[in-house]
Amino acid sequence: MIIKIVELVGTSTENFGEAVENAVQRASGTVRNVSGVDILKFSAKVEDGKISEYRANVKIAFVVENVEQ
Amino acid sequence: MIIKIVELVGTSTENFGEAVENAVQRASGTVRNVSGVDILKFSAKVEDGKISEYRANVKIAFVVENVEQ
Amino acid sequence: MIIKIVELVGTSTENFGEAVENAVQRASGTVRNVSGVDILKFSAKVEDGKISEYRANVKIAFVVENVEQ
Amino acid sequence: MIIKIVELVGTSTENFGEAVENAVQRASGTVRNVSGVDILKFSAKVEDGKISEYRANVKIAFVVENVEQ
Amino acid sequence: MIIKIVELVGTSTENFGEAVENAVQRASGTVRNVSGVDILKFSAKVEDGKISEYRANVKIAFVVENVEQ
Amino acid sequence: MIIKIVELVGTSTENFGEAVENAVQRASGTVRNVSGVDILKFSAKVEDGKISEYRANVKIAFVVENVEQ
Amino acid sequence: MIIKIVELVGTSTENFGEAVENAVQRASGTVRNVSGVDILKFSAKVEDGKISEYRANVKIAFVVENVEQ
Amino acid sequence: MIIKIVELVGTSTENFGEAVENAVQRASGTVRNVSGVDILKFSAKVEDGKISEYRANVKIAFVVENVEQ
Amino acid sequence: MIIKIVELVGTSTENFGEAVENAVQRASGTVRNVSGVDILKFSAKVEDGKISEYRANVKIAFVVENVEQ
Amino acid sequence: MIIKIVELVGTSTENFGEAVENAVQRASGTVRNVSGVDILKFSAKVEDGKISEYRANVKIAFVVENVEQ
Amino acid sequence: MIIKIVELVGTSTENFGEAVENAVQRASGTVRNVSGVDILKFSAKVEDGKISEYRANVKIAFVVENVEQ
Amino acid sequence: MIIKIVELVGTSTENFGEAVENAVQRASGTVRNVSGVDILKFSAKVEDGKISEYRANVKIAFVVENVEQ
Repeated sequence: MIIKIVELVGTSTENFGEAVENAVQRASGTVRNVSGVDILKFSAKVEDGKISEYRANVKIAFVVENVEQ
Repeated sequence: MIIKIVELVGTSTENFGEAVENAVQRASGTVRNVSGVDILKFSAKVEDGKISEYRANVKIAFVVENVEQ
Repeated sequence: MIIKIVELVGTSTENFGEAVENAVQRASGTVRNVSGVDILKFSAKVEDGKISEYRANVKIAFVVENVEQ
Repeated sequence: MIIKIVELVGTSTENFGEAVENAVQRASGTVRNVSGVDILKFSAKVEDGKISEYRANVKIAFVVENVEQ
Repeated sequence: MIIKIVELVGTSTENFGEAVENAVQRASGTVRNVSGVDILKFSAKVEDGKISEYRANVKIAFVVENVEQ
Repeated sequence: MIIKIVELVGTSTENFGEAVENAVQRASGTVRNVSGVDILKFSAKVEDGKISEYRANVKIAFVVENVEQ
Repeated sequence: MIIKIVELVGTSTENFGEAVENAVQRASGTVRNVSGVDILKFSAKVEDGKISEYRANVKIAFVVENVEQ
Repeated sequence: MIIKIVELVGTSTENFGEAVENAVQRASGTVRNVSGVDILKFSAKVEDGKISEYRANVKIAFVVENVEQ
Repeated sequence: MIIKIVELVGTSTENFGEAVENAVQRASGTVRNVSGVDILKFSAKVEDGKISEYRANVKIAFVVENVEQ
Repeated sequence: MIIKIVELVGTSTENFGEAVENAVQRASGTVRNVSGVDILKFSAKVEDGKISEYRANVKIAFVVENVEQ
Repeated sequence: MIIKIVELVGTSTENFGEAVENAVQRASGTVRNVSGVDILKFSAKVEDGKISEYRANVKIAFVVENVEQ
Repeated sequence: MIIKIVELVGTSTENFGEAVENAVQRASGTVRNVSGVDILKFSAKVEDGKISEYRANVKIAFVVENVEQ
């Protein structure tokens, strides 16, 4: 068994939790066998004194058959 | 005064905040004098493209009389 | 263009997300041109077995004309 | 020349060295020009008081013609 | 479910792998439900130009009912 | 919106800046929507007392529609 | 031989050195076979413009027979 | 003597070196006694496959008479 | 409540402890409500084989009404 | 007593353990009083899909009479 | 084969690249078989609002026959 | 000008400050032009519940004419 780990940045206009979930959901749409997610960093864009975009840098782990280029 | 620090992993099926709170609550059930909690890392298990378990690695600080083995 | 980065600790009695938002909001009250926020660390005070204060150490970035002392 | 670096988790039921070798071998099955491997972390699953799966988080480096999405 | 994480240093006169296994085995002798081990650092004592003791700093994770002092 | 982050090593026989630019240029040749680059590390090969190859480990960020394996 | 490592915060109203020594002394009161101490961090509480409490986060190492929960 | 350290992000459309120099120059315009600069991180914005803005996160050190809020 | 954190380098010709205390004292002379100090790094200048200046890089935390530029 | 610490990279065509031992053995051939070794990083060269050289970055500690240039 | 790694600080009045090259060149003047250089940190001295000395902390790797004290 | 940086462990039976000073003093006995010292880590040996040896891991910087093997 080989697990591949990719770094993604999920985004949300609502909160940090949704930013993580969006990253997981989008990854799971095309990659099968996602088994886990590690959160690396939370950040946010600010416009007019308010957070306009929540961001979560995550590492998604999934089982692969082959390691593509 | 001596403060002891233990590392725990709290879990929740709902969100990251509850994972932290569960760790604090369980620690407070048997350990008196919990004064604070530091969050080390957030992660999650994924099943069928959705987060099935939110996890929070935390460090719990509490005042101790003796440093048990 | 010069961006200045300051470290703040935002607090909330409700949750970690609000602690971040409070830091952003308070910074934006006196500092113009806040463009982003990086979360460094989450922690919390615990009293009587419950979280009494959520804390977020953040770095706020904003465009400055001059670098004040 | 452009080198791409991917993170993999190799596994073995025998030992940590084989976990690294399995990651290299699987990567080399589909990716040409693997030139090196950096070990990031060793860990293991434990069942009934014994290690049931050795794991090695590694970074595999290989020369690429194009940077695929 | 609450997971507790303790840091141990396993030792061996043979090799690094055995140092990890000794830490796991000794932990499993008194702590039930050990689920995993993370290796933090390898080191060794040297005497007369040879390694006399292999050491592995590890973090052992196990499910607990209560968080003892 | 999902952002993917890949690690590359750009090289140059001239200087560190060109090593970064080569990584960006090569990535942009096949990946659309590259938005930014973070420099992780600079290093160099030395031959006959002179730098023969400048290297830059970088993280390239780009917007993706799907997270490929 | 298994070594256990626990994190403590020693305190002193005098100076940082005494904060370390207090942690060692308190640990040695109940735990036999303390062999060493690593200092992780120094910090201090400030009241009325003066340090009111010196703090030392330390890791205490000691030989154990069994790994208690 | 008290030295204050502030984090800035200098920018340049030319190269990383100029991004550092711009940060130093702008800081020196209003802050006297700048004695040194530490580079924390280099990054860049990319547009249409080319670097459009070089960025340098730096820490500027300067002697202060008073620590302003 | 918003806490601001600033990095200072305190100095002393006597010892490391006094370098920390000088930073706290000087900060408290102009900034009200200093609540704590974290020590980041100790270093020293050496002249003629002896330490001529002890230095402590510290982070001072204090409550602010407004986040000044 | 003064201990000096030097960084070496030991190599082996067999495995990671031998790479560490080779570094220790070579150091002990010319340096007396080697007391310990810390492993910093494991890596490997890969040729034709197989590991051709195991590498261990280590720090060797030994007692010195004088600190040579 | 044993590789030794030494830390140097190269300096230049011109730019960061030359600071690295000076370190490599000076090392290569007396040490044979320098194979590579890793850049650890860039910094600079500032005088009268301008950079007066560029500095590069580097690690130089070279093959050695014996590990000198 | 080339600066060399060596890692030493100074020891003292009295306190941490003296451990640093001993490292500086011993280095200065044979190495000319020591300009500074950075403290990396403090630790201590413990015997019979008391600190028997204070240790300071330090990096000593000094100007060199040639980079010896």
